[in-house]
This record gives sequence, structure tokens and C-alpha cells, in this order.
Amino acid sequence: MSPACDLLLTNATVLTMDDAFSIHPSGGVAVTGDSVVATGPDALGYTASETLDCGGRVVMPGLVNAHTHVPMSLLRGLADDLRLDVWLMGYMMPVEREFVSPEFVRLGTHLGCAEMIRSGITCFADMYYFEEAVAEATAAAGMRAFCGQTVLRFPSPDARSFEEGLARARAFIEEWKGHPLIVPGPAPHAPYTCTPEILRSCAELAAEFDVPLHIHLSETLLEVEGLRQAHGMPGVPWVRKQGLFDAKVLAAHCVHVDEGEIRTLKNYRAGVSHNPSSNLKLGAGIAPVAAMLKLGLNVGIGTDGAASNNDLDMFEETRLAALLAKGGSGDPTAVPARDALAMATRLGAAALHLDSVTGSLEPGKRADLIVIDLHQLHNLPAFARDPGGVYARIVYASKSTDVVHVMCNGQWLMRDRVLLTLDEENLTREARGWATRIDAFLGSREVSVLQKLVAVGGAIEQESFEVQVKARLDSADRVLAALNGDLFTVIRSSRYRQHDIYWSFDDPEQGRLRFREDEILDDTGAVTGERSRLTLTGNTREARFGAVMLFRSRYLAPAAHSARFYREYFRPSAEHLVEKERRRWLVAYRGVEFYVHLDRLLNPAAEGYFLELKSRTWSQRDARDKAAVISELLTAFGATADETIGPGYIELARRGASSPEA
Amino acid sequence: MSPACDLLLTNATVLTMDDAFSIHPSGGVAVTGDSVVATGPDALGYTASETLDCGGRVVMPGLVNAHTHVPMSLLRGLADDLRLDVWLMGYMMPVEREFVSPEFVRLGTHLGCAEMIRSGITCFADMYYFEEAVAEATAAAGMRAFCGQTVLRFPSPDARSFEEGLARARAFIEEWKGHPLIVPGPAPHAPYTCTPEILRSCAELAAEFDVPLHIHLSETLLEVEGLRQAHGMPGVPWVRKQGLFDAKVLAAHCVHVDEGEIRTLKNYRAGVSHNPSSNLKLGAGIAPVAAMLKLGLNVGIGTDGAASNNDLDMFEETRLAALLAKGGSGDPTAVPARDALAMATRLGAAALHLDSVTGSLEPGKRADLIVIDLHQLHNLPAFARDPGGVYARIVYASKSTDVVHVMCNGQWLMRDRVLLTLDEENLTREARGWATRIDAFLGSREVSVLQKLVAVGGAIEQESFEVQVKARLDSADRVLAALNGDLFTVIRSSRYRQHDIYWSFDDPEQGRLRFREDEILDDTGAVTGERSRLTLTGNTREARFGAVMLFRSRYLAPAAHSARFYREYFRPSAEHLVEKERRRWLVAYRGVEFYVHLDRLLNPAAEGYFLELKSRTWSQRDARDKAAVISELLTAFGATADETIGPGYIELARRGASSPEA
Repeated sequence: MSPACDLLLTNATVLTMDDAFSIHPSGGVAVTGDSVVATGPDALGYTASETLDCGGRVVMPGLVNAHTHVPMSLLRGLADDLRLDVWLMGYMMPVEREFVSPEFVRLGTHLGCAEMIRSGITCFADMYYFEEAVAEATAAAGMRAFCGQTVLRFPSPDARSFEEGLARARAFIEEWKGHPLIVPGPAPHAPYTCTPEILRSCAELAAEFDVPLHIHLSETLLEVEGLRQAHGMPGVPWVRKQGLFDAKVLAAHCVHVDEGEIRTLKNYRAGVSHNPSSNLKLGAGIAPVAAMLKLGLNVGIGTDGAASNNDLDMFEETRLAALLAKGGSGDPTAVPARDALAMATRLGAAALHLDSVTGSLEPGKRADLIVIDLHQLHNLPAFARDPGGVYARIVYASKSTDVVHVMCNGQWLMRDRVLLTLDEENLTREARGWATRIDAFLGSREVSVLQKLVAVGGAIEQESFEVQVKARLDSADRVLAALNGDLFTVIRSSRYRQHDIYWSFDDPEQGRLRFREDEILDDTGAVTGERSRLTLTGNTREARFGAVMLFRSRYLAPAAHSARFYREYFRPSAEHLVEKERRRWLVAYRGVEFYVHLDRLLNPAAEGYFLELKSRTWSQRDARDKAAVISELLTAFGATADETIGPGYIELARRGASSPEA
Repeated sequence: MSPACDLLLTNATVLTMDDAFSIHPSGGVAVTGDSVVATGPDALGYTASETLDCGGRVVMPGLVNAHTHVPMSLLRGLADDLRLDVWLMGYMMPVEREFVSPEFVRLGTHLGCAEMIRSGITCFADMYYFEEAVAEATAAAGMRAFCGQTVLRFPSPDARSFEEGLARARAFIEEWKGHPLIVPGPAPHAPYTCTPEILRSCAELAAEFDVPLHIHLSETLLEVEGLRQAHGMPGVPWVRKQGLFDAKVLAAHCVHVDEGEIRTLKNYRAGVSHNPSSNLKLGAGIAPVAAMLKLGLNVGIGTDGAASNNDLDMFEETRLAALLAKGGSGDPTAVPARDALAMATRLGAAALHLDSVTGSLEPGKRADLIVIDLHQLHNLPAFARDPGGVYARIVYASKSTDVVHVMCNGQWLMRDRVLLTLDEENLTREARGWATRIDAFLGSREVSVLQKLVAVGGAIEQESFEVQVKARLDSADRVLAALNGDLFTVIRSSRYRQHDIYWSFDDPEQGRLRFREDEILDDTGAVTGERSRLTLTGNTREARFGAVMLFRSRYLAPAAHSARFYREYFRPSAEHLVEKERRRWLVAYRGVEFYVHLDRLLNPAAEGYFLELKSRTWSQRDARDKAAVISELLTAFGATADETIGPGYIELARRGASSPEA
């Protein structure tokens, strides 16, 4: 009597993607419960309760997406073509701080799962916040996943501290370990966002529960150079030193790893997720995939999050992995189609430490499989000469939309391109609702430079009014003599070189943003320190008292990022540079404190000296009083007010510096 | 009264892709006859005989595929993951020699047009044989194309000589010039396949008729280095020197061009087709697209032929162009989505010298347009914050299957994903027929190493039988003394270093393939010349006469390619190297000619000398007679036959060389 199974797929070209790359040209797959019981000619001997004629299509293992942040599907297309820091800190993180909640995560996961199922993915490795909501939504969609609960040293949407994040990870693992579809684990975000303690604690947690650990590793040259400078070693030895490899590691990216590091990863049986689209789009580089495969590493392929990539299409990603390995090395025989497809299936499953369960069609493994139609117009004709040609047809010419049926863990998730576990219409409607709210949030912040400054974090509302006057001098002698005289009490003095970048905008109402970097100098002119800050000022004089002007400075923020960051984030319409060397005295005159600034302009270069007298003020009346005193001071210094200079010398920079007037 | 038009597209986001990148969020497009008469709000003022509600979808110009070989769609998937020469000379050219005919070209063009229409392409630049058949089939499909008739210095499927090719090109241009859809032109294949005369003649022909000229240029480093060595200059100056830029040039690839060359291309208003998938897949490199765009070059995007790429999907290609520019430069702001889409439309049209006709939606241009659905699951959600975000949604997340309607020259080619000018079922059936015939052809040649050798060209059936004997000697003295003695007449002598690679196959019946390279030496041992050849030999001794063996050598071919080429083409299961220094005498002994070889084995290194005596033979009887004489000779040389050495010393190489037996 022939053996029995629940479901028999017949009339198929079966790509098992097993170690021997067995292909059964007119084969079948027998499934019972959640598992494959036979493939190829063996399967055709089974008697099945249900039979599906595959119409000569290809049956192969479901694709494994080895690295993603699935809920970020809800942020797809929010911001593109930006540098990583601007994208992340200017857009993603502010929006995540505001919106990421279990509800957001659930919907984002369902949206991502729907897209993944439609493109033939049955298993993925995730890293996000509220990972229990990811797990729940994934299990409800019927997909398999290794879910990594993020731990990092900053406050995150789901944890105020790393301890809280770690506690969340532990609770998550305890709750989900042993689930038929979900493998939980900790996800220390990356070496540059985690302390050694976080890396160690996460590795210990993963080892304690024997679950894998998910991390971003050696993604950019900046990251690796940072580790080299700080610790004298690149990414892989650094995390090894923290005991990371006590856990079963899945390392995403590994763009900047050398051969020694690849060997280390191999020795510790770490898996790697290669994410070619993401690495190209963010300019990270090209990972040495051919070398990794040659040394026997388990390298999978990942889409990364849809917010950066901008989709979850493993067909595109696999094709790109195959092409990029050739283009990057100049060797057109590198990573042939068969190997690329192995990365997208069996090797990816091994990278997730799930190869005993999925990644190939073999008796005993779960029934995670897809049926692809290679008879589409864009895949004609079909040559039979080389049986292995089917790998090239899938990798180089087929599209995710050629996937017809998808099964995971013995359950159909898609039949004839109709999703069975998710409601596309519902998802579409709900996603639109979130997009509208996120649009409104970003819209309100993007109405003004000030709101963008607040959104990027760290802006301090510190409104201040100043009265000030400026003058040009041929010589500093009279000022220095006066300061040494009896008229003033010098409270303190300092000296620095000040580099200012002024950004202005098409709408003058937005004011002017100044990015200021000071090099603090000692008496000999040597640099003893640095500081930088951002100031957003109104463009106009608030009032004038004779030659003395009243200015308002509105916002002050520590400049945590580079000038380049702010330039790309704020996208000013014009930029002017001013560099000066300043001597600064805080003096008391008739009981009132004033700043005396004696400046030499370096850029735009100008001869002579500039004298600036200023004082903070709090009211119109106070301003008027101080303006009177400032006028007296100016006379005491033997100077005459020059109203054309402007508060930041930017007017000089605009028109080019000139010689001081006689 | 409102103006009238034939067709009004309404309720659309109109991306005009004009110079200002005008977007009309709720706009329309008015079409009359073959042309656009208005776009945006203007269009909505028209009264139309027919109105199409686009349901909030995107309307944009049809995509321009700036470089392809469209009939090669019929060869898609024939051979992949091979080096360019193996792919081209091992597979494409033999198959093209056998199959390419007007019928092949017509069907291949229809197949390619069907795929291109389905993926939103309305215009392409082609280069192939029987280009009049390409033009005819394209016009019948309703697509626009610049069709380049190939001219090259080798015989081709449609021309026995370059003069014939040039005459074909002239006749083709005369016949098709002025057609509303087809622009004919000459296509000198590439600098390395064309003589200066061909380049000049083609440029003159194009200039005479004021049509563009299509060429492959600076695709690989090998090509550019070859030109540098031969002519002291890279690709662009070389073709300029031949007067190529007297014509309106479309240069495909331009991977290896420096900034000066880019400026030259710009000065001559040459267009460039960037073909990222093809360049990656064949390991050619990454073209400096960002620099080209910065210098204002008209750079389009091309799929190249489906036989190499392996599809004609401009969505994939455009996405890759955007990603690769970032990954190649490390700058994630390089070639943003908007610029990539401009390359796929307006700049591509300009590269084809067709920008007065197509590439953007502007009044007066032809109505070449597509309607794309961005409401697909893989493109959710949609943020409204940045109106330019639509470019990123199209380039990074949409798929060719999202194209809903396609119009070219005012004619609908696809509505709701149904082709209107081509019969998909018919194409599918016919393509299968060709695939079967090509499979049979390749199958018959691939049954044996001999057939593969014949297929790759240049094999000469030159069956020869030899009787031979080998012996090991401690010293050469007795041989040299005997040769100087009276016994022999030395007819001629020579000396060379011989490098042999022996390839064997799993099936021993296939025989052994020897790749032989000789360095010819003068009396002092200096190299005076080189020669190389391939020999396919049977594996077994045909007969023996005492210690003298009869061997058969079957095929001899000039080795036109490198050892690497043949290794990748024949894929032997084992390889053995033998290097020896040989002194060779042709002697007459008793009126019979014999070869006397005195060899020293260099690799595998072996002490002492090897003596080989051999003679061509034609019959069993002749062989027997000569075997007897050879035995006598051996004795005269004081040597004893050693049957273990084998005809090519390969047995020694296999077991490692050893000292001569005493």
C-alpha cells in the first residue's frame, strides 16, 4: 500500500535547494501536517487527501528574508536620497518617537507580511521595538520569523533605558520561546549604539535561552573606523571581545569585514545577512560576499526595512546580490544564480540558525514552499539544454509577481495571488490613516525652520534680547588702553576663533540659522578647546535707539551633528561663511555688565578691527537705558557706530569685505 | 468655447518630466492625433471626444530603453554566469550563426516589444542584424525606436563582409527615413570589432542622412587598455579621430571614460546609454554616471539585450541606476530618484537624439505615455509631505507590473495590462518552437567535446595516426652523437619550450583536450616566437606493435582564445599541466621520415632526458613496418622503451615526476 499524506503537489519542477541542489523536473512534494514528508519521484508514490496540480510550474522553498525591520513598512517613502544620519535622526527617529506603539507595530508588521507573502517570502529575521507585537502579528499572518527585541543605549519607543530594553527582551523570549512559527531573541542594535555591557548582557541572555541574537555589524566604514580609533580593532574582534559569540549570532550587513573577520564569523558559526539594496542606497559599500561564500559562511540575503529600501522584494534583492558580486569583483562567474538562490533560501535559513526547520524542501523540514510561474512573457523562451538554467531564469528574469501560491508551516498563505491570512483592503485603509497622521506631524514641523530644529531634538527655547552696536577701527590701541584704565572692571576675558555658517531660506520670515564652531585659544593663540552650537535668529532689528540696535535671538541648540548634517536637513537656499578671531571681555561699567568684543575678520578677510559692544536686556525700558550707556562706551573707546555691519558680519560676507573706512 | 482634443486623461498625477520637473497633482493630459496638446490644469479645459479617468494614478512619459538588442529576447537564459567571451563566442555567436534570419528577428522583436510594452517602455534604441525586420516588427507593434543596422569587420548573419553590411545600412536608412515611429541609422558595433574605415564610413553615412549612429563604447577595461596599447589613447579620442562625432552618436556603456572623455562626449552632443545590470552581470564595472550628469551629458538607461540581462525591465534598471550611483561613490545623495527617472525618460530620449519627439509630456511632443498604479500594497503608505516623493515611490518601490496603460504616438498599446497590438499566446507558442530547435542544436553539439570544439569555430578535422615510442635517458650524449653520425639524414631541427594543459572529462569516451602553447627558441635559448593550438585526442592506444604504440589524434584547432576561455567553455573535470623543453629533429632513416624528440621535463620536474621517436602512419601495415624501424632506431640511440610514460607525459604529471630508472 502506498504511504499517505495530507497534500500532494504534482506536475512541478521541484527545486529542493538541498545541499546537492537536487532538481526533480517532473516531481512532486508530499506534505503532512506542518512538514514535508517526501519530494521528487518519492512524493509521487504517496496517496493524498488533496492534490494540487502545479501546471508545470516551479515549486521551491519559501524565500528567507534575513534582515528587516518589518513594521517600518508604514514609513516607506517618508524620506529618500538622504545621508544615513539625516534620514535616521532627521526623519525616522523623530517620527518613531512620536508614533511607534504596539498598534503601529502590529499594522506595520501586517503590511510588511502581506508584501512579503506576495513576493514569496515565508520566513524573515526582524529587529524592532515592541517585538512581542511583531511576533503576534507575524504568527497571525502565518509566517515564520526570528524576532529580535531591540536593546540599545538610548531611550527608545519601548524602553526608557537599556535595562528596561533588556528586561523587555527577557520577558519576550520567555513568552515566545517554543512557538511553532516564532523564534524570539535579543537584538543589541549595533556596536556604535550599544555599550560593551549591553553586548555582553544580550549574549548571555541569548545563550541562557539558546536563542539566536540579531545585530547590525560593520555596516559603514565610519562605524569600523570609529571602533578602530576607539578600541584598536574593527567590528568582529570588538564584539567577540564582549563575548557576543557566546550566542548564535545573526550579523546584518558585514560590509566592511576582512578575511580574518570572515574566518572568525565562520568559526563561531555566525550567520550573515547581506543587504545589497540597502548598502547601495545608503552608500555603505559592497560586502565581500564571494569571499564569505568561499570560506563557507552562511550568508543570507535581506531586504532591510522598507523605509530605507524601499520594498521587501527578495526577487529584486537576490538578483542584485548576484549582479553586485560580479560587478564589485569584475568576475562575471562570481556568485552564479544557483548560489544566489541558495543564499535566498537554505543559507539564509542557516544564517538565522533555522536550517533544521526551513530553507530547503527535504523530508522532515517544515512545509515552507512557494509555487512560481516561469511561463510569463518576460521569462520566455525556456531552454532545456542546462537543467541548472532554471536558477538563472528565477534569479535574473522572474519577478516577485510571478509567485502564484505560498505555503508556510503547512498552511496556505496565498493561493492564485490572493492572500488568505490578511485583509489587503483593510490594511490599505489603515495604512492610509497612519500616513495622514504622520504627514500632519511632519507638515506641522516643516512649516518652519524652528519646528524642524525642535524636531531634530535638542533645541532649547531660550529667547534673548540684546542691545548692540558695532564699529570699525584701524587700531586696537585705544580699546586695549581703555580696558586697562580705571573706567571698567574686567570680570573675565577670553579669546577664540569663531567659524560661523549662516543659512538663510527662501522665506525670510524663517530667520537665519547660524552654525557656530569656536576654537578656544590661550594667550599664545594655541587651541585649547572647541564648542559648537546652533542659533536661530530673527532676520530683523526689533528696535533701534540711535545707533544702538535691539536684536532678538530665539533658539539655541547644542550642535550635536555636523554642518553637513544640518545643511542637508534644513536645505537652506543660501549659505555664508564668517570666520573671525575674537577677544572678549565681560566688563562692568556703572554697575551694568557689557560684553566688549574686539574682532579681526579672517573670512571674509578685512583689514583693521571690529569693535562690538553688547548687553542682554529684558524690557524696552532696560534696552533704552543700556543703549544710552553703550553710546557712551563707544565714545570712550574712540569709535563711531557703523550700522551697516550687521549683527553677525554676514552683510560683510555677502558683499565681500572691504577696507575700514577712514 | 473650450478647445477640443481627441482624448483627455483626467484624475491623474501628471509627471511631465519636463526641464522644470513640473508635476500636476490633479491634472490631465489632452491628446490629439499622435501628439500631446496640453498637460496639467490647461488640459482640463479641453473638450474631448473620449475621456479616461485615471483613478488618481500617475501619468508620465513612456520609458525610453536607451540600448538593447531586442531580437535577442529569443536567446534569453540560453547561457548565464559566464565570462563575456565564453558567453559570446561559445554560445551566442554559434547560435546566431545558425539561427538568425529575418523570421528569427521578427519574432524576437515582437517578443521583446511585448515585454517592453508591459513594463512601460514606449521607445528604444536597438542594434542588431536584419534591422529592417526589427523596424518592421517594431512599427507593427506600435512602438517607437531608433534602429541601428550592425556593421562590423567579421562576417555576420546578415552580411558576408563589412561592405555588404554598410550597403545594408544604407539601404535600410533610405527605406525607413521619415517613418513616424522608426528612426534608422548605422550601428558600427564597437571600436574593437570595427576598423577605422568602418567607423568613418558609418559616420559619413549617418551624417549624409542626418540620422543618429549607435555604437558600443568603452564597455570593458580590456577594450580600453587594448586601444591604449595599440593607439595610445582610450575609446572616446580614438573614435573621435576616426570622425565618428561627425554623426549624432549614441554610445552604449561608457563604463571606462574619464572626465576629459565625458567633456568630449558633451561637446559633440553625444548621448550615452548607461546599462547597469549588464555592466554588473558581465563584470564590466560601474559607469561614472553622477559625473556625466553633473557635466550635463544626456545619459539614458538601457536594459541591453535580454540574452545577457536577462529581461527588458526599465523599472529594475532605473532603480539599479539610482542605487549603483550611490553605492559606487559612497554618496547616498548621488543620482536621486528624480534624476534617475529623468534618465529613464527625457535624458534617454535626448541620448537617442529624439528629444524633440518624446521623453516628456509637453504640448507638441508625441503622445508617448504610461499610466502607473502606485496604490499597490508594495507601495503603501503614500506620504504627501514632499510632492517630489512620487519619484522615489516610482523608482524605489514600484514594479513594471504596476504599469496599467501604455500609449505610443497617440495609439494605445496596452489597456488594463492587456496588449492591444501583439498576440501574447501566439508569441509564446512560436518562442517555444524556436527554443526547441535551438535546444536541439546545442544539445547535439554538447553531446561531445568534439562537437563543442566544432561549434566554437575553427576546428579542423585532421585525423592522424602516429606510431611512437618513449624512453628515459640519464644523458643525451648518445642521442646527439647518433644524430651527428652517418645513420641519419637530418632534414630540419628546432627547439622550443612547450606548455601543455591537458583537460579530461568525466566521460573518458570524450577523450582528452590539449591546449598547447609553444615558445620557439633559438640556439641560445632565447624566445623568438610563439604558437598555440588545441588538440582533441582519443584516450586509448589504437594498437601496439611490441613497445611501439599506435595513437590517433583527431582534431586540431588554432587556439584563438585563452586557456581560461576553453576551461570555462569546456568545463573539464580535471586538468594537468606539462611543461617541457624540446629539441626536435626531422630525420630520414632508410628513406622513412621520423621525428626525434629529446625532451627535458620542467613541470612536473624530472631528472634526465626523455626520448620520443614518432612517425605519421596511414595504414595498419604501414604502422607495423614503421614500428619495426622505430625499434631499431631506439636501439641505435642506446635506449629502452618505457611504456608507462604515455603520449603526452600526462601520466607522469598525474603521479608526480620521478627520477629516471636506472
